[in-house]
Amino acid sequence: MSDVQSVRVQTPGGHYPIHIGSGCLQTLADHIPADATSLALVTNVTVDALYGERVRSLLAATGKPLLTIALPDGEAHKDWASLNQVFDALLAQGLDRKMVLVALGGGVVGDLGGFAAACYQRGVRFVQAPTTLLAQVDSSVGGKTAINHPRGKNMIGAFYQPQAVVIDPDVLQTLPAREISAGLAEVIKYGMIADAAFFDWCEAHAAGLRALDATLVAQAIRRSCEIKAAVVSQDEREAGVRAHLNFGHTFGHAIEAGLGYGQWLHGEAVGCGMVLAAELSARVCGLDPAAVARIRALVQAIGCPVQAPDLGVQRWLELMRVDKKTRGRHIHYVLLPRLGAAQVQAVDDDTVAPLLAQLAGQGGGAPGGENP
Amino acid sequence: MSDVQSVRVQTPGGHYPIHIGSGCLQTLADHIPADATSLALVTNVTVDALYGERVRSLLAATGKPLLTIALPDGEAHKDWASLNQVFDALLAQGLDRKMVLVALGGGVVGDLGGFAAACYQRGVRFVQAPTTLLAQVDSSVGGKTAINHPRGKNMIGAFYQPQAVVIDPDVLQTLPAREISAGLAEVIKYGMIADAAFFDWCEAHAAGLRALDATLVAQAIRRSCEIKAAVVSQDEREAGVRAHLNFGHTFGHAIEAGLGYGQWLHGEAVGCGMVLAAELSARVCGLDPAAVARIRALVQAIGCPVQAPDLGVQRWLELMRVDKKTRGRHIHYVLLPRLGAAQVQAVDDDTVAPLLAQLAGQGGGAPGGENP
Repeated sequence: MSDVQSVRVQTPGGHYPIHIGSGCLQTLADHIPADATSLALVTNVTVDALYGERVRSLLAATGKPLLTIALPDGEAHKDWASLNQVFDALLAQGLDRKMVLVALGGGVVGDLGGFAAACYQRGVRFVQAPTTLLAQVDSSVGGKTAINHPRGKNMIGAFYQPQAVVIDPDVLQTLPAREISAGLAEVIKYGMIADAAFFDWCEAHAAGLRALDATLVAQAIRRSCEIKAAVVSQDEREAGVRAHLNFGHTFGHAIEAGLGYGQWLHGEAVGCGMVLAAELSARVCGLDPAAVARIRALVQAIGCPVQAPDLGVQRWLELMRVDKKTRGRHIHYVLLPRLGAAQVQAVDDDTVAPLLAQLAGQGGGAPGGENP
Repeated sequence: MSDVQSVRVQTPGGHYPIHIGSGCLQTLADHIPADATSLALVTNVTVDALYGERVRSLLAATGKPLLTIALPDGEAHKDWASLNQVFDALLAQGLDRKMVLVALGGGVVGDLGGFAAACYQRGVRFVQAPTTLLAQVDSSVGGKTAINHPRGKNMIGAFYQPQAVVIDPDVLQTLPAREISAGLAEVIKYGMIADAAFFDWCEAHAAGLRALDATLVAQAIRRSCEIKAAVVSQDEREAGVRAHLNFGHTFGHAIEAGLGYGQWLHGEAVGCGMVLAAELSARVCGLDPAAVARIRALVQAIGCPVQAPDLGVQRWLELMRVDKKTRGRHIHYVLLPRLGAAQVQAVDDDTVAPLLAQLAGQGGGAPGGENP
């Protein structure tokens, strides 16, 4: 095992470490609290087939009873039915409040597993072991848990912090290329909103990151987690600066909901959403058109779609209005006044509609297109 | 309006006031935060018919848009379907994170409405206006929110504190006698676990309390809320002393689950459960048999059943094992070493089984029996 680095997250709801390093999944059992009465491994069928046996044998070292709950794979299953599958299994085994839930998988497993932990018997402890790049740099850090509702993404959830996050980049080797690209969308986002030098670094290493160069990927994950941890430590409940992490997400969520969850990967939708948000930033808060072009080029370079789908302008606005950042009758967007800085700004529909008509009007993009 | 008294609850999750007084529902709009974008009144069809119009006209004074969500009435509807009815309505109206939910009703509405507030967009603010005695002295205070699962009561929920609780004893005049008795079960519980003098006072005034003497009822609510607020302020998440509030509840939950939710009222099941817990206390931690007799007599005097239903001893134990107080393979009970003091103690099934065989063996009780 190579060197493991730790990033600390501090919130009013508690503090906990993120451990990052090649091979560090091997240490998973070390992060199970000693007084746990039992363990539940929440994963999906795909990850279970790849890593379930290994993780079960690692957790067996704790000597605690272990239950595996393998959910169907995919964003389409981030719903009440899957959540209830977890509750049913925990209750069928009579697991008590001192159990510990281990979420092994991507963002869906982490968000849903975390929300299950938040609600089961009004809250049990959990450990995150994210297995996708997207989850490693985004959803596993910060305590946002949720399921989707037919009327909107992540509408039902909780702020609930894990005991620890264990991030092993080695598990990314089994990921499809599309998932790597989708994860890199969140990586480059951190540069756009908070660290222009990191954006430069991502531009310089886009090809190496896509090719999963081990050193580059570990560096990218660590810097991403550092930025996210700093933001979350300042603002657990998204009263202020945490909203900046949603750059590209208002547009991205509309893509996911409008096309049906699971058609585009979350990171692909965010990648494309960042291009739209950059274009909007140029129109309303002075982002340099050259920066817009660099953002578009980097989104494309990491393998994400840059052409927005044609949902119809009114449907676009309706889908964005249900976004959690909406306050009353105005849609609030995260925008970039310049590379490396973000702000939240209300923009009226009369400004956004022509942009959507122009950029999402026709010839809607398809993910993974240039990389079949 | 007569004098309104306030009790303050302080938890790590925040502090908030409980306002208690005849007529104080009239002040409801004063407790809506000024920056609320909109209001959702969550109630049930029965309460809506009695108080909906009045409360809507009170809330209209805020000038904020108001949505009413009237759920089906009863413990049987404290489930995912009703919770989703709330989410659907909030999302259909596009209500944002700055909305405020007002829960007007009994324990089901308060617990479910509070859990909806805890989860909607990862948490919105809410105000409790409890309309049953049980909710006024118990469930509206302390931030426990939940829904039931087919495998157990309150298994899915959150610790989530309201902005304020507004308790108006005048609304109890429209309650059926059975509901008054059920609420009084929790009132006398506070005496048993924490205040022997209050137990004496309840014995002396049982008839007046059942008859809803305004002065006595207001005093009983205030003392109950004071005791509960003190306990919750010490221990929001039930790591210690808060568990004492569950006196009678392990047995009571088994009655509710075993007979099917809604057959006995929660307070009736707790009343009967306290008699069983008192009997167990006499067997394992030295509670004076004279105190057991006084507890039984007071439960009967307030109009709650004292004869436990015959669920079968094995089924009793199985239902109690899923209770949240269970740690591993031992059932933990809240017991009384003496009147006015409580402790949590593991008791093995070999001790509990004969007690159940004797006291819940046959001729199972029926609620409201002596008061048809």
